[in-house]
Amino acid sequence: MSNRTLIRGGLVITAADETHADVLVEDGRIAALAAHGSTAAESWAEAADRTVDATGKYVIPGGVDAHTHMELPFGGTFASDTFETGTRAAAWGGTTTIVDFAVQSVGQSLREGLDAWYAKADGNCAVDYAFHMIMADVNESSLKEMDLLVEEGVTSFKLFMAYPGVFYSDDGQILRAMQRGSANGGLIMMHAENGIAIDVLVEQALARGETDPRYHGEVRKVLLEAEATHRAIQLARVAGAPVYVVHVSAEEAVAELVAARDKGLNVFGETCPQYLFLSTDNLAEPDFEGAKYVCSTPLRPKEHQAALWRGLRTNDLQVVSTDHCPFCFSGQKELGRGDFSKIPNGLPGVENRMDLLHQAVLDGHISRRRWIEIACASPARMFGLYPKKGTISPGADADIVIYDPGATQVLSAGTHHMNVDYSAYEGKRITGQVETVLSRGETVIDRREFTGRAGHGVYTPRSTCQYLS
Amino acid sequence: MSNRTLIRGGLVITAADETHADVLVEDGRIAALAAHGSTAAESWAEAADRTVDATGKYVIPGGVDAHTHMELPFGGTFASDTFETGTRAAAWGGTTTIVDFAVQSVGQSLREGLDAWYAKADGNCAVDYAFHMIMADVNESSLKEMDLLVEEGVTSFKLFMAYPGVFYSDDGQILRAMQRGSANGGLIMMHAENGIAIDVLVEQALARGETDPRYHGEVRKVLLEAEATHRAIQLARVAGAPVYVVHVSAEEAVAELVAARDKGLNVFGETCPQYLFLSTDNLAEPDFEGAKYVCSTPLRPKEHQAALWRGLRTNDLQVVSTDHCPFCFSGQKELGRGDFSKIPNGLPGVENRMDLLHQAVLDGHISRRRWIEIACASPARMFGLYPKKGTISPGADADIVIYDPGATQVLSAGTHHMNVDYSAYEGKRITGQVETVLSRGETVIDRREFTGRAGHGVYTPRSTCQYLS
Amino acid sequence: MSNRTLIRGGLVITAADETHADVLVEDGRIAALAAHGSTAAESWAEAADRTVDATGKYVIPGGVDAHTHMELPFGGTFASDTFETGTRAAAWGGTTTIVDFAVQSVGQSLREGLDAWYAKADGNCAVDYAFHMIMADVNESSLKEMDLLVEEGVTSFKLFMAYPGVFYSDDGQILRAMQRGSANGGLIMMHAENGIAIDVLVEQALARGETDPRYHGEVRKVLLEAEATHRAIQLARVAGAPVYVVHVSAEEAVAELVAARDKGLNVFGETCPQYLFLSTDNLAEPDFEGAKYVCSTPLRPKEHQAALWRGLRTNDLQVVSTDHCPFCFSGQKELGRGDFSKIPNGLPGVENRMDLLHQAVLDGHISRRRWIEIACASPARMFGLYPKKGTISPGADADIVIYDPGATQVLSAGTHHMNVDYSAYEGKRITGQVETVLSRGETVIDRREFTGRAGHGVYTPRSTCQYLS
Amino acid sequence: MSNRTLIRGGLVITAADETHADVLVEDGRIAALAAHGSTAAESWAEAADRTVDATGKYVIPGGVDAHTHMELPFGGTFASDTFETGTRAAAWGGTTTIVDFAVQSVGQSLREGLDAWYAKADGNCAVDYAFHMIMADVNESSLKEMDLLVEEGVTSFKLFMAYPGVFYSDDGQILRAMQRGSANGGLIMMHAENGIAIDVLVEQALARGETDPRYHGEVRKVLLEAEATHRAIQLARVAGAPVYVVHVSAEEAVAELVAARDKGLNVFGETCPQYLFLSTDNLAEPDFEGAKYVCSTPLRPKEHQAALWRGLRTNDLQVVSTDHCPFCFSGQKELGRGDFSKIPNGLPGVENRMDLLHQAVLDGHISRRRWIEIACASPARMFGLYPKKGTISPGADADIVIYDPGATQVLSAGTHHMNVDYSAYEGKRITGQVETVLSRGETVIDRREFTGRAGHGVYTPRSTCQYLS
Repeated sequence: MSNRTLIRGGLVITAADETHADVLVEDGRIAALAAHGSTAAESWAEAADRTVDATGKYVIPGGVDAHTHMELPFGGTFASDTFETGTRAAAWGGTTTIVDFAVQSVGQSLREGLDAWYAKADGNCAVDYAFHMIMADVNESSLKEMDLLVEEGVTSFKLFMAYPGVFYSDDGQILRAMQRGSANGGLIMMHAENGIAIDVLVEQALARGETDPRYHGEVRKVLLEAEATHRAIQLARVAGAPVYVVHVSAEEAVAELVAARDKGLNVFGETCPQYLFLSTDNLAEPDFEGAKYVCSTPLRPKEHQAALWRGLRTNDLQVVSTDHCPFCFSGQKELGRGDFSKIPNGLPGVENRMDLLHQAVLDGHISRRRWIEIACASPARMFGLYPKKGTISPGADADIVIYDPGATQVLSAGTHHMNVDYSAYEGKRITGQVETVLSRGETVIDRREFTGRAGHGVYTPRSTCQYLS
Repeated sequence: MSNRTLIRGGLVITAADETHADVLVEDGRIAALAAHGSTAAESWAEAADRTVDATGKYVIPGGVDAHTHMELPFGGTFASDTFETGTRAAAWGGTTTIVDFAVQSVGQSLREGLDAWYAKADGNCAVDYAFHMIMADVNESSLKEMDLLVEEGVTSFKLFMAYPGVFYSDDGQILRAMQRGSANGGLIMMHAENGIAIDVLVEQALARGETDPRYHGEVRKVLLEAEATHRAIQLARVAGAPVYVVHVSAEEAVAELVAARDKGLNVFGETCPQYLFLSTDNLAEPDFEGAKYVCSTPLRPKEHQAALWRGLRTNDLQVVSTDHCPFCFSGQKELGRGDFSKIPNGLPGVENRMDLLHQAVLDGHISRRRWIEIACASPARMFGLYPKKGTISPGADADIVIYDPGATQVLSAGTHHMNVDYSAYEGKRITGQVETVLSRGETVIDRREFTGRAGHGVYTPRSTCQYLS
Repeated sequence: MSNRTLIRGGLVITAADETHADVLVEDGRIAALAAHGSTAAESWAEAADRTVDATGKYVIPGGVDAHTHMELPFGGTFASDTFETGTRAAAWGGTTTIVDFAVQSVGQSLREGLDAWYAKADGNCAVDYAFHMIMADVNESSLKEMDLLVEEGVTSFKLFMAYPGVFYSDDGQILRAMQRGSANGGLIMMHAENGIAIDVLVEQALARGETDPRYHGEVRKVLLEAEATHRAIQLARVAGAPVYVVHVSAEEAVAELVAARDKGLNVFGETCPQYLFLSTDNLAEPDFEGAKYVCSTPLRPKEHQAALWRGLRTNDLQVVSTDHCPFCFSGQKELGRGDFSKIPNGLPGVENRMDLLHQAVLDGHISRRRWIEIACASPARMFGLYPKKGTISPGADADIVIYDPGATQVLSAGTHHMNVDYSAYEGKRITGQVETVLSRGETVIDRREFTGRAGHGVYTPRSTCQYLS
Repeated sequence: MSNRTLIRGGLVITAADETHADVLVEDGRIAALAAHGSTAAESWAEAADRTVDATGKYVIPGGVDAHTHMELPFGGTFASDTFETGTRAAAWGGTTTIVDFAVQSVGQSLREGLDAWYAKADGNCAVDYAFHMIMADVNESSLKEMDLLVEEGVTSFKLFMAYPGVFYSDDGQILRAMQRGSANGGLIMMHAENGIAIDVLVEQALARGETDPRYHGEVRKVLLEAEATHRAIQLARVAGAPVYVVHVSAEEAVAELVAARDKGLNVFGETCPQYLFLSTDNLAEPDFEGAKYVCSTPLRPKEHQAALWRGLRTNDLQVVSTDHCPFCFSGQKELGRGDFSKIPNGLPGVENRMDLLHQAVLDGHISRRRWIEIACASPARMFGLYPKKGTISPGADADIVIYDPGATQVLSAGTHHMNVDYSAYEGKRITGQVETVLSRGETVIDRREFTGRAGHGVYTPRSTCQYLS
């Protein structure tokens, strides 16, 4: 006999529709939707094992955060959230699926890297998870491995035009990986910054005694993000492959995406809340506080935000992910005192994304449906999780958030659930809050109480990109 | 006691999702959707008054054709489809809502024109209908009337930059109407061709003895469509208003829309099947046969089609309407023998749109979901009919088409239901066919038999544009 | 026996070269150039009737101001400079040729208008002059007259997209005139503002009580200049004709020129010193002082200046003219107190152009050679006066300015020679000053003393545009 | 007592002017110009030591070919023209100055490379010459050497984004060299092709058995030239430096220059006759004949030529050089039979440039003055040789060509003077021919007879770029 949960009285918001409907969950999946008060809906009320009252609330798909780095090794330390703490924080923030990055190190096979990440996550996650693969060593052998990974559900591969000597791939490696992806369906995700040129500027800045965190923003120039974005697109055209540019931060980089998309190319872009809400003003905070905001691509002058919002409205940017990669200020960010290039790159954010973007709805930047599209539906489609994830539709996983659009909250390290000693948005007032969260039908947040558990979340293999035109 | 119809076993396709779901219709509206085989779905099977088997078929929203001209007076004659024949043909073609154009004549009030069109349609339609208003005389009085029309559900107003002396508005009239629309929510629809310049070229062509239908295409130059499109956009910017450009046909006009939309402006564009499937080759058919293809904007050289398809894929064009405006070859088109400028402008098409666009899916131009978006969801949103029309969602009108994706047919005047003596697509082979059509729950086409009636279709007032960003 | 003047020791600057050369003038024309100290140069020193010492000075071609309006009737009054006072002021400012605008009134022939202007100028000018023709009434008859005017040396025709009811031509008239020009070599000059739309905004502004001069700048919107510029270009493309846009003031209008020129089209643009050095800040000066700066196209916000300078550097703007059209503040500009639309449109400037542009050289906006190009050579080429005017080359007219690059001056109504009671640049400090001016070999300014006379200047017929690519 | 030559009766054409003038040469320099028949001109006739009759001929500046590779080592062989044979051929073709490329090898200093090239040229040249420096090893030491070279008149430095392992510089090296050039005035010349990506495509093509010369054109893709062009421009912007892109061949690369120049950037482009007159059709010639046309960037499909001609007209391309780098078909080109990547890259052309571009005048691509600008004046300005070279103006070197515009000739290896066994233009009929050539006043070609000598030509140090805006 099946287990049935009924979510009654809410406004169901998906990327496509806003519907006054009750949602029936059976055995972890969405079985049916019915208009409030229809005889179908009324009939369910009697038969449900459990009823959640969503009157006055939004009923939205659980968030899909397609860019997280739990426990990432970086610059001699590790991102401070484990899969356990990080996915629990995700649940608190209404995100029910993360796609984290398994890492191939130079000299290692993809297999080794991927297996290490499977092991880190296994049994520890509060919500479902999947993996992209970072390729740090593109060669004949790893190119062949790509095919196998695509078959087992790791269908996207991140390359770096930055970080020479660590993750960096040259244009020949990029071209080969794109060609392979074109053949096997794997999607290339690109960190688009000209790292070779940036490293020259870093060296010159340090030689001039410019060691403060704000110089991190100055040397990683807008033009060098735009250049790499353009180059990635041209290489993708040569390979006949799509390309997804991660963490787009600069107006000029958006312009490259716009130009490519106007040609009808399968070129995609993601931005992150930090580029939408923070700026170089934060990087310039005194007493080394700017280090909290050091990430790459870097924060940009405020003027760039308008282009990012516009890109989200015009669908020239399709996805908002977090690039969640937290390092504690104390002991971790501090490694870079006296040398900004030694500050671990990354910000916490997996818990804040859905709320910040709801605030953007209230601020008039995007519509409610677009909120769900960029945070749930498009990342799910982009990375082969749709319609299992990212929508509320019969047959989909019952990953559902009851969202209270009128509640208010103040973001703070004092109250957040990420394992990091600061908040990038400390003190920011937000209207809207996650109330209850179902993951495959199971309640993991119940009226702002964590009722989930490590190990509930399961690995979710992905199909290839469903966003191609 | 309610009337319940169950549509079982089909693939429900909307602009957003493809779902294997049963659809429950109660009292003319969609009550619920449930996954095939779910207990909810099973429970309905017993209780339904009627069950439609959609196994192996698509279950799609009824089409919304936002641009028709039934019984339009033009050049001393009338479009040959009445509201009765035209809406019946629409139903045959899977279109369950049309938005037709009421016409204000010069010297007349909007009211008079609108009332005349209400009267023409009332009691005669097989499917639901609504009205845009053509403003041929923008003045203080008609500007004030716009407010009243918006309130009663006529929320869009068409202006002409072409046809001096008939429908033409000058840039000052356009600006004033846009300003008024900006205030009252009315959307300006623009026929964007520089008619003043075109009339010079018409006169010069005729003076050179160039009287054949193909000269219709030569004098109405691509650059003059692009120019007017650009001008309409600039005037809309000055007015702070959105603008919707009808029947976009030329690559250069698309480029103007692309440039505007890249800036994030609320600029929209519609194209029509004739621009996607026909070309100046047709206009050049011998023995005056080219007259069958005379419409304005005119058909363009084949090379323009790629830009239109790309625009549909990139959402720089949002809507495909028909501009259905049929004139019989015999007796009507023939008015222009010896003078192309006397050929009544217009093509039949209301019955063919859904099929031609399904063929475009098979030809690889667009995806299935995009088919539904441009033919159903976006026109409904654009003109304030959503979600009543254009989707399959609890609460929506039960305007539903059971579409057989594997059936084949040959388009022909011999078999079509439009009241016109030729088909613009005579002999074209199409895969896919409408099988059954529900209009507000009532079956109007039942397995390729017309079961509807004149008068079933009702006037449907519209809210303002729901497509603004 | 010929009359020989030798200009020794100066730096000869043309659009192309900077040469340390002596210049030999024979019988009003430049006979030869020889390197300082060459035997050729030395041989001349003995034989010259007169030697001008230009050591430490620039020897430059006399300026060509291709846009003046002496005695123009406008809004019930007349521009305050006659051909006598205006051309004398031109000479003072180093300008030795003006191209003024003869005016056809509605209902009049071109002939009548042109003859009237011949009569106004005849015997009154201190320097040489030529005419463009303003066409206010494009019709079959005036189109035919264009051919005759081109033959007699009036080879350019100005049309207005602004000023409905006065100078305005509709797009059909514009197209016809461009077609005619394409056939007979006449160049269409365009006042590119959408006057139909502007008049709506003027009426609305006045209705709101916005009567101050600064509203002149607000209603004549940047987008409406850009729109008209784009339209003029498209019409020119349809006609297969070049087009020259006068007094370009807005960044967005420059962008239209850039886009057209990138396509290789013969599209040209002129700007004026007022757009380069003044701004809406001046229009907003209190106590109706803003009226001094009322001209159309209007002054723009300061931010537009960078685009104009860049356009001059990239040759997307080819010419700097003055649009000299002075009206006294007292009694003339004052006609518009309480209604900005009644302020006569125009600024004085014919005397200031060469100096202001030399200041731009010092300010780093343009090079010395580019100064001469935009002020002398390009206007001469554009309007068929080259190489008679605009350069220093054997065979050219001996219109030569000895320019002191180190002298300083302060622009002021107190010291200028234009017949107008204010200076648009009152108090502006300039480095560089005209010292001596030769017009066809005759000294009209001698070490800052006027030695010319009314009647020295002669009418100069022009060939067709020499600037086409 | 000076040596005086008088060139009488010709039409003097420079980049700026066309003047009917006699030219007086004294002691190797141009002393004076005087209008035909002026008393000044008449006085010279008596005193001249020698008179050249140029009646009916053009008198033009000697050509400046800013891109030659005499005796270049490449792929295990050497370019077949020595400085002696190559500069003699240049003279025959009306080119009186070449700027050749000295080569730094990896591990070597700039000094060593430059001295080797001084030695090769010294005493061997028929016309004047200068050097650019190829930097194959950008490092701290060679960066410092740049300053010294600029001081001694080697003011331009070529870098390669192609040829990894040979001439290739990475983006960091490029950035550093540009920064250094920005400080010392040295101009960076860029071979803009993404060689890293191309090498992947080469390897893949050979692996597929695609060994024919035409594959050389297919693997060196248009998009990879455009990409590198864009990247070079962005790096130059970061460095605050100008950049000159050599041998631009693709429409998409021109588009990158256009976009940069529209922004007002100091970005320059050169193309070569082979891209204007030849195409991939030549590369596809059977029997390995395609090898004759192997050069990099490669020949492109014919459709690209229109963009190059347009770029030359709009001044988005400023210079036409030859990239003269001849290898005999027999014994040299043949090294690449069975492997197109082994074919020495380069074409002969130093002798044909002036004639081919005169033909382009007759074909309507460019004007006469533009011919002289792109072939003489602009290269001279670009590389700091102006006005010594590139114009006919008092004080300039008397490098003068008497050009017969009506003579006809057929280009052929049988008649050319370059030391190579084929002509890239075999059989092409040209109107126009060099008749007489003066180099610093000395006659090196006299009515189509070589009267010069090895060693007449002297090394000519250059100032920094004179083309910056």
